[in-house]
Amino acid sequence: MERVKKVGIIGAGNVGSTLAYILSATTPYEIVLQDKDKDRARGMLLDMFQASCVGTKFTKLGVIASPKDLKGCDVIVIAAGSPRLPGMSRNDLLFANAKVISEISQNIKENSPEAIVVLITNPLDAMVYTALKETGFNPKQIMGMAGVLDSARMVSFIYEKLQCAPGQIMAPVMGGHGDEMVPLPRFSMVNGVPLTELLSQNEIEEIVRRTRNAGAEIVNCLKKGSAYFAPARAAAEMVRAIMSDSHKILPCSVLLQGEYGYNDVVGGVPVELGIHGIERIVELQLNTEEKTQFERSINSVKSLIEALKNEYF
Amino acid sequence: MERVKKVGIIGAGNVGSTLAYILSATTPYEIVLQDKDKDRARGMLLDMFQASCVGTKFTKLGVIASPKDLKGCDVIVIAAGSPRLPGMSRNDLLFANAKVISEISQNIKENSPEAIVVLITNPLDAMVYTALKETGFNPKQIMGMAGVLDSARMVSFIYEKLQCAPGQIMAPVMGGHGDEMVPLPRFSMVNGVPLTELLSQNEIEEIVRRTRNAGAEIVNCLKKGSAYFAPARAAAEMVRAIMSDSHKILPCSVLLQGEYGYNDVVGGVPVELGIHGIERIVELQLNTEEKTQFERSINSVKSLIEALKNEYF
Amino acid sequence: MERVKKVGIIGAGNVGSTLAYILSATTPYEIVLQDKDKDRARGMLLDMFQASCVGTKFTKLGVIASPKDLKGCDVIVIAAGSPRLPGMSRNDLLFANAKVISEISQNIKENSPEAIVVLITNPLDAMVYTALKETGFNPKQIMGMAGVLDSARMVSFIYEKLQCAPGQIMAPVMGGHGDEMVPLPRFSMVNGVPLTELLSQNEIEEIVRRTRNAGAEIVNCLKKGSAYFAPARAAAEMVRAIMSDSHKILPCSVLLQGEYGYNDVVGGVPVELGIHGIERIVELQLNTEEKTQFERSINSVKSLIEALKNEYF
Amino acid sequence: MERVKKVGIIGAGNVGSTLAYILSATTPYEIVLQDKDKDRARGMLLDMFQASCVGTKFTKLGVIASPKDLKGCDVIVIAAGSPRLPGMSRNDLLFANAKVISEISQNIKENSPEAIVVLITNPLDAMVYTALKETGFNPKQIMGMAGVLDSARMVSFIYEKLQCAPGQIMAPVMGGHGDEMVPLPRFSMVNGVPLTELLSQNEIEEIVRRTRNAGAEIVNCLKKGSAYFAPARAAAEMVRAIMSDSHKILPCSVLLQGEYGYNDVVGGVPVELGIHGIERIVELQLNTEEKTQFERSINSVKSLIEALKNEYF
Repeated sequence: MERVKKVGIIGAGNVGSTLAYILSATTPYEIVLQDKDKDRARGMLLDMFQASCVGTKFTKLGVIASPKDLKGCDVIVIAAGSPRLPGMSRNDLLFANAKVISEISQNIKENSPEAIVVLITNPLDAMVYTALKETGFNPKQIMGMAGVLDSARMVSFIYEKLQCAPGQIMAPVMGGHGDEMVPLPRFSMVNGVPLTELLSQNEIEEIVRRTRNAGAEIVNCLKKGSAYFAPARAAAEMVRAIMSDSHKILPCSVLLQGEYGYNDVVGGVPVELGIHGIERIVELQLNTEEKTQFERSINSVKSLIEALKNEYF
Repeated sequence: MERVKKVGIIGAGNVGSTLAYILSATTPYEIVLQDKDKDRARGMLLDMFQASCVGTKFTKLGVIASPKDLKGCDVIVIAAGSPRLPGMSRNDLLFANAKVISEISQNIKENSPEAIVVLITNPLDAMVYTALKETGFNPKQIMGMAGVLDSARMVSFIYEKLQCAPGQIMAPVMGGHGDEMVPLPRFSMVNGVPLTELLSQNEIEEIVRRTRNAGAEIVNCLKKGSAYFAPARAAAEMVRAIMSDSHKILPCSVLLQGEYGYNDVVGGVPVELGIHGIERIVELQLNTEEKTQFERSINSVKSLIEALKNEYF
Repeated sequence: MERVKKVGIIGAGNVGSTLAYILSATTPYEIVLQDKDKDRARGMLLDMFQASCVGTKFTKLGVIASPKDLKGCDVIVIAAGSPRLPGMSRNDLLFANAKVISEISQNIKENSPEAIVVLITNPLDAMVYTALKETGFNPKQIMGMAGVLDSARMVSFIYEKLQCAPGQIMAPVMGGHGDEMVPLPRFSMVNGVPLTELLSQNEIEEIVRRTRNAGAEIVNCLKKGSAYFAPARAAAEMVRAIMSDSHKILPCSVLLQGEYGYNDVVGGVPVELGIHGIERIVELQLNTEEKTQFERSINSVKSLIEALKNEYF
Repeated sequence: MERVKKVGIIGAGNVGSTLAYILSATTPYEIVLQDKDKDRARGMLLDMFQASCVGTKFTKLGVIASPKDLKGCDVIVIAAGSPRLPGMSRNDLLFANAKVISEISQNIKENSPEAIVVLITNPLDAMVYTALKETGFNPKQIMGMAGVLDSARMVSFIYEKLQCAPGQIMAPVMGGHGDEMVPLPRFSMVNGVPLTELLSQNEIEEIVRRTRNAGAEIVNCLKKGSAYFAPARAAAEMVRAIMSDSHKILPCSVLLQGEYGYNDVVGGVPVELGIHGIERIVELQLNTEEKTQFERSINSVKSLIEALKNEYF
């Protein structure tokens, strides 16, 4: 029999290590974790492995000592990179993280050219674009995690209003992962009933606003640090959907090649995830307002990509 | 039908919030989280609830706004308190956390006098003693989490040597939760085979040493911060064992009232956990060396309790 | 702390025992099983408990020796009664099972008057009506399992056509549990996209027909015996939704008291399930054709209830 | 990425179909089911898939139409064969099932020569021997399920006496799967404490007797039919241990090639299970009485193998 499937996680910060924990507790896959601070990765894995020893489900967990250990990873999640620090301009962050992603992309290209790559690093869509350029991989192989998280957040705000139907609410979010993301109330359903029949226009607008602001809302609560349980769980959902060849439809940041009328830009759209990565891009029939919002969001991603092209590639 | 069972968690640091996450992902119980920084508790719960919205299993999660909201908790876990900060003497920490535990104990006593209480705050055994004194609760109701974690760590080190039998290794650890804890290789088994038949005396001694030092090993790796996945998972194991009236035998820090020859002191011993808390203390037949080690460990707890009695109670 | 919650299952046939197995493997609740053949119930429980001993998650399992042991059950599922045997008229079955349900209802009334009751016995809606009459319970407490199963079947047929979006398809089914059930393609969604945009009218009609015939399709495959995995899983879903006070919206057979324009009849409609049983009946805005189908289905239930009233009550 | 791992199950009776259900509910692996009655396999799978549609975890399930569809299975479980029917001599059963296993072995040899094969068909050890001869496979690849079940049963009887330590009892059983199986109380432990310290000699003897008779006890309760939940769960445990390359130590029926002093005979001994099947046979240090019992049990298997050699191979 072939070896056990393997997930590589790059970045042992809160999101990366929580993702490693969730996967180790819920899947049979081998997990390897890399961080530029090797000791940190080692400490987190010791802690996680000791956690699994409380129970009876053990997962193989390993620290990646060198990029060569990425060899054999079926899926690689990139959770590395800086947050925006005080005094950093938006472009400072863009260039700093693009450098991180470029280096990691080279390592993946050399050691694991067949892997499916999921990025979490911000600014997300621009980082997906960077990884695509630096690896030269088939665009099916590379995607960013944003829509699954944004959708879960929108669902949480809908649930807060309705106080019923847990696990039965669907609320897709498209566009770039930023303030101009495009929540889609018209495609949001509560167990088959359109959201627009259950809540007033005002309530829906409040939910849309809160969804766009959800990351910042948590940052404000925590003062230092940002959300990591939901981002990690969202990434775990994508990893499982890919590894099990599920063909689940999840909103992901992917290269658009004509879909929705865009080319050579990365944006969040619903895709079918399977063992080859992005098996299909789903094209929803947007109305005029939704198209306008999506355009604004995509343009905002384009300007980041232009900045990268001018100064970086 | 009676209401859904409820777990209260006091302290939204890494251990408390990871515990809340694990319980929300694996049990049907309602969970409420309190922190002196209410915003932090709120931010962590938003993140956790959004995580649950990625999937379909929702748990009721709430922030405790006032101690009165502890009302109706079936189990309360105390994960509050300071770590030892630079410049703090051992006794400084003891008194600082005793104050925190006293205040929390008063709140529990007033609002939730039937609850089973599980402490995680260090120095663990002295904090359990503090909670016992301050609440005046039946000693069955109050216990500390240490042995489940220490045992899991010992199991992890045994597994590292054997590279087999995951989930089939048992390795109890007794005594106070400190450098003088008492790992029990003579009662350690790998699927029915005594550890002492599988590893050399040297290897076993190395495992014992590493178990005693396991917390510090992780602190050294992480530089800032300490372990939280395994501590949270260990506490979750105790909560589940209690809530489901399992009568599992787990090493917990409890008041000794004659058992093992000790009185009016708290120490880690195997106990049966059930719906009334500590259903029974199990007395292992220790040999002379094990007794000596246990005595040393208990004496070390006693000296902390004396310090508390002299300056605090 | 209050005792552990308890589920009673009456009937240790394939559905009842598979339900007991599923609940024992996925919830912390105590489970008791009753069958008129006590030895059979005992044999099934021995087997199930030994199954749980393969792993590490034990559930309390007990055989009910007398109706008095129903005491303390929070939810009781009735999976007893005969299938339709060769030579039995439709009414023969109706009266035979009404007798079984009456006797069980008396036992529940005497020993567990607070329990929420879920029926699986056919003809389902008439049996729910019988239990309501015989217990005199609050109608919130009594419901039948049909719509969750019928919906799951409709979902399975939609998935078979689409080959994508597993776990993301919703397809409610209303009406009585019989050939005249009312699948609702207009309220069926695939991750937010209306089914009617994804499949042709012909394909949808085929799915509706197959849903109505799904039980018979399996009976034809198996020759002897009928489906039990999906019925048991559907009942488990209802039990969990109730016990955890989830307020999930699930189609259940309940007494209509004015909803959808009907009175004193039992039919399948979407309801919110919580700790009090039926927390709310949800009224979908049906169109003319859907109303006509629903009426036909309800009339068919009414004729069974009439037959019971004339010859039985 | 390589395809999703696949489990083939041959035989859609109670054990085979319950195994398929358990694996579909708890693993991400693809499952295919074969039965000589293709309609039955199809009916069971429809039911199971509809069950998975109640929730959100879908597994790929397929019916094997021809032996060629065994291609690509990583593990194949054989749950086919007859039970002993009235009027059948012990050897009648032996020859009837040997014929079934031979035919299946040929199909596996031709279509899935790399697969790990787990047999459940009785008389177990002789059937494992038959599969070894007929496939000519590496003995690491072929094993029988008996000890995991027998151990779980012994654990269940120990728990019944102790009423504590669920999931913390270990009780290995060796030898052939028959009345002469060898339960090993001396290697049985309750959370590190030897069973012999917790129960009297009489109680232990009663547990040993009941373990040997456990299958018959359930048959007596059910009158028609025999146990299937625990056998299916035990087989699922083996499949998971292999697929996840766990190196768990589980008692399995395997070819002895010198171990314990036996050659060219199949018997139950503890083995390490991993991705290559039997990674290692573990040799416990048996005492004289245990050796005598093991010899008796192995001799009983030998006599069946002799009968097969004389009249069949």
